[in-house]
Amino acid sequence: MASAELLTSLYGDQHRLCPTPNSQHSLVLSREREIDLFELERLCDAVGWSRRPLRRVRKALQHSLLRVGLWRHDPRMPKLVGFARCTGDGVVEATVWDVAVHPLYQGAGLGKQLMVYVLDQLRSMEVDRVSLFADPEVVAFYIAQGWELEPLQRRCAFWYSP
Amino acid sequence: MASAELLTSLYGDQHRLCPTPNSQHSLVLSREREIDLFELERLCDAVGWSRRPLRRVRKALQHSLLRVGLWRHDPRMPKLVGFARCTGDGVVEATVWDVAVHPLYQGAGLGKQLMVYVLDQLRSMEVDRVSLFADPEVVAFYIAQGWELEPLQRRCAFWYSP
Repeated sequence: MASAELLTSLYGDQHRLCPTPNSQHSLVLSREREIDLFELERLCDAVGWSRRPLRRVRKALQHSLLRVGLWRHDPRMPKLVGFARCTGDGVVEATVWDVAVHPLYQGAGLGKQLMVYVLDQLRSMEVDRVSLFADPEVVAFYIAQGWELEPLQRRCAFWYSP
Repeated sequence: MASAELLTSLYGDQHRLCPTPNSQHSLVLSREREIDLFELERLCDAVGWSRRPLRRVRKALQHSLLRVGLWRHDPRMPKLVGFARCTGDGVVEATVWDVAVHPLYQGAGLGKQLMVYVLDQLRSMEVDRVSLFADPEVVAFYIAQGWELEPLQRRCAFWYSP
């Protein structure tokens, strides 16, 4: 078990240890530890997302309201196994994007702990309302965590740059 | 008819004159002219939105990616008659919020021109994708302008701060 001092030095003051059924490794949520773009790309590959140019990903992360990594703890080289980020004004609105947990780490409740952490961070900013766009296969996942589907019969609409 | 110099001094380089059937007054879109919070509150009252604390609205505007006003031109005191804003990272994602046109100015195609202006500004930033949440009564409005409703069967979900 890593010491609290070591974890704080690696993952920042706001880090949170994730309880998992597998006690072989520690998993840590952090909004402070910097995300390596190549590691993030490998994670996105593993969950089957299409690639984006790294310089655009870098800028998108820089301009996000919140970036959260889920790390498999290793004192020398923590491994990124989950991710989520938010855009928004940080007051009235925040929107969650790019929620991913590596397939090898799915099924252990880590996605839920990642979302709880994200909402706790947004709550500490006193954001009024958080929104997201749920793919069909994860709608039930979000509803089970207290998200309201299409309140007031709102529908989501997208416009894609030509 | 106001001179281009006067319009630029009042509304900035990026302003756009709106063609309207009523030639009595000029209507101008601007992302640069500063929005007065009290005027914005009166506009939101006119369209029937619930009020928010002004200090939070100020902060939300400051942290928005884009703020657009629709102004009835007056050389001394332009009047705010429409509004929209976006949050986002300005690269991959942008989300449109708080689209409003004063009831006295509705029905003249101004909402559409406001949205075209917003998308043109986002396109100039090279944003990949723009999203919004449409109330039932404006879903057809957005579809008519090329927005795609719930692509890939995505559903919107909201979480409200307790």
